[in-house]
Amino acid sequence: MKMLAGLLLLAVPVFGQSTAGTIIARELQTSRSYEILSHITDDIGARLTGSKGAALAVRWTTRQFREWGIPVSNEAVKVPHWVRGREEARLVSPANQNIVLTAIGGSVATPPSGITADVIEVDSFDDLKTLGTAKLRGTIVFYNNPMDMELVRSHRAFEAYRIAVAFRGAGASRAAEYGAKAIVIRSVGSASLRTPHTGALRYDPKQPKIPAAAMTAEDAMLVHRLLARGKHVRMHMLLTPKTLPEVDSANVIAEIRGSEKPEEIVLIGAHLDSWDLATGAIDDGSGVAMVMETMRLLKEMNLRPRRTIRAVLFMNEENGLRGGLQYAKEHGNETHVAAIETDAGGAAPTGFTTTLKADALTALEERTKPLAAVSSNRFEIAEEAGADIDPLTTKGVPSFGLVPEPLHYFDYHHTNADTLDKVDPKELAQDTAAIAGLAWILAE
Amino acid sequence: MKMLAGLLLLAVPVFGQSTAGTIIARELQTSRSYEILSHITDDIGARLTGSKGAALAVRWTTRQFREWGIPVSNEAVKVPHWVRGREEARLVSPANQNIVLTAIGGSVATPPSGITADVIEVDSFDDLKTLGTAKLRGTIVFYNNPMDMELVRSHRAFEAYRIAVAFRGAGASRAAEYGAKAIVIRSVGSASLRTPHTGALRYDPKQPKIPAAAMTAEDAMLVHRLLARGKHVRMHMLLTPKTLPEVDSANVIAEIRGSEKPEEIVLIGAHLDSWDLATGAIDDGSGVAMVMETMRLLKEMNLRPRRTIRAVLFMNEENGLRGGLQYAKEHGNETHVAAIETDAGGAAPTGFTTTLKADALTALEERTKPLAAVSSNRFEIAEEAGADIDPLTTKGVPSFGLVPEPLHYFDYHHTNADTLDKVDPKELAQDTAAIAGLAWILAE
Repeated sequence: MKMLAGLLLLAVPVFGQSTAGTIIARELQTSRSYEILSHITDDIGARLTGSKGAALAVRWTTRQFREWGIPVSNEAVKVPHWVRGREEARLVSPANQNIVLTAIGGSVATPPSGITADVIEVDSFDDLKTLGTAKLRGTIVFYNNPMDMELVRSHRAFEAYRIAVAFRGAGASRAAEYGAKAIVIRSVGSASLRTPHTGALRYDPKQPKIPAAAMTAEDAMLVHRLLARGKHVRMHMLLTPKTLPEVDSANVIAEIRGSEKPEEIVLIGAHLDSWDLATGAIDDGSGVAMVMETMRLLKEMNLRPRRTIRAVLFMNEENGLRGGLQYAKEHGNETHVAAIETDAGGAAPTGFTTTLKADALTALEERTKPLAAVSSNRFEIAEEAGADIDPLTTKGVPSFGLVPEPLHYFDYHHTNADTLDKVDPKELAQDTAAIAGLAWILAE
Repeated sequence: MKMLAGLLLLAVPVFGQSTAGTIIARELQTSRSYEILSHITDDIGARLTGSKGAALAVRWTTRQFREWGIPVSNEAVKVPHWVRGREEARLVSPANQNIVLTAIGGSVATPPSGITADVIEVDSFDDLKTLGTAKLRGTIVFYNNPMDMELVRSHRAFEAYRIAVAFRGAGASRAAEYGAKAIVIRSVGSASLRTPHTGALRYDPKQPKIPAAAMTAEDAMLVHRLLARGKHVRMHMLLTPKTLPEVDSANVIAEIRGSEKPEEIVLIGAHLDSWDLATGAIDDGSGVAMVMETMRLLKEMNLRPRRTIRAVLFMNEENGLRGGLQYAKEHGNETHVAAIETDAGGAAPTGFTTTLKADALTALEERTKPLAAVSSNRFEIAEEAGADIDPLTTKGVPSFGLVPEPLHYFDYHHTNADTLDKVDPKELAQDTAAIAGLAWILAE
């Protein structure tokens, strides 16, 4: 294989193809991205921070880099360990109806016998203020905030997500302020077959911690209809999640050292952990596969860039960001010339977000034409490019986020349907080609 | 309202509209079909035979006919009473993977500690023979038979269903013959977000009864991939359903007596029971709403057909057909000039299946032109037109089955996502108009 790679490289000047172009073509022809993703999902499985799956993922990815002959290390990260328990709910008034919900990650448990309380619907934080403690004390507050499907259909699903997800993150503490006993949100998602979408919350240390869950869209619509018809809606809910002692875990860091400026780093990153409900194929097994395959491919092709390309598989993006923070703490003073994050699924690539300023971007675009082969030579200026690299971005490191087609991402995101079958091997290879191509260009 | 209806009827000759046309127009303008369906789903809920919901449905529909001034009676039917219990599964080899499945209706329980066994994949009954007792004894047989999506996409979803569902019905006993401990099928459905589809099975009295469950498409694909990679797949499954003593239940029968030939009956039927996983909006709350609304509308319009129009809300279509059999036993010797069943969802109408012979159909089609207003003047000759009226069909009663657009029916069928939001009020009114129009034409 290495000989073949050598021949291809020798051939470059003859065919007028850039090295980035060669890398992209090679990935499309010989991709092992899907094979890597299959291992992560089918053979390892769910990888919630602190779980056995997460630990297995650290070990397997580390061993894999080593087998490929790529220097690799584990960076110790202390992580939270939250485990889901039973999650049951039903309406006890006006009719006996089963309610399908899932605990929001980080939620405290209900009392062992559950909570039974009136359900009060709101669709903004302002509503809480209007209703006040008099109306909210002792209730289950129901945030009925669907994703804006117009935005989703116009390929701005992440924008729709950011708006709707505010209630998942802050809703519990905001309602606790008014004496609510618990909250339920409408799942933040763009499709449902009675499908709850989990995700993380943040408790405000100044407020009592109350249980929080996400109902399916169908259940949210049912409760809404009943309330709209003037019915008195009471719900029973039981959640038994636990927050266990913190656990020792790790980021996995592998490098191909630069030939001329090894101290200058182009980071490519994705996150190893997933939610517990499924095997995290799109979030973020796909990203991990792209990052690992980029390194494998460069190594196999015996390519050595001028700058160092560093792969970082972050731990705990989903419910703590400890890996990203730890990396920034340990490596924030090193010279990162760029950071690329891939954490938006494995659908066909459409380009990158970037924090580069317009001038710098124009200069870069001169050099990124090979990415057009995988429809990725399109950059959209954004304020951030990924959660794990955000501490670097904040320090001014030019950042990039891969943008796979987002139309169906939130159909599966944080659900038990985030499984391997949702990823197309060809599209995943195109994503990897985009990452590998951009990383190479930035490292040269 | 009645005065207005009278005026409309007087106006018929002026505008040249047939009475059937007037009925159709009136339903489209003033439909209460969705309101009826809302009550059945939101206020009553799941209606599995033998359950509280099923009993409530008998009572409410009976009272409703009475309130509308339509003579109604309950016909006693003894029914089975199966209740779902816990249903849990996971792979214990080659990796620890959660498996999402649901018991097939009628399944016996596993032992209290569950079953742990090797999984052997087959895709036909012939495969069982080929493998034989030597390879199948003590295993969990996995029928991996997806619906043919080409058929589904070409609007022949019911054909695809009939093919795939053979394994749900007979699979347990066929595998028990070779010593299998349990079976799992791939859910019979055309969409999945990790969505199991239940349904009924039939045990062969000559074979031992073994537990049977339906995995989601995602889980079926996972197990298939692992086996295809040569892995040894072991599954643990626990099911705790129970078959309780039989219960007294009823068909609900309401009539508008014919003015000239009251002994000649046009039957319109749907089934009151649903599966337990959801509220049975498409299966068959929609049908019940169409049948009830047809009767309400005719009554409100003060229309009296020459023959009797009889509404029958059958109990226990899903797991026993006791209501249909009981009706045939009690009423089989009455003169049914036609029977119309609606049990295929609430999407926009596309026509009817019919058991009429070609000549008789041609004659009928002369009179069904008003149905074109709701795109339903299209009849496809079939051998049967509905499960509940099948005993009548077998006796030679001309039978009709409403055909709502079937494209998405099996996305939701027998799942926990069969909820009110899947039905469009306008389309449901069109369905009712088609039923009411055809019933009127046949009764005149």
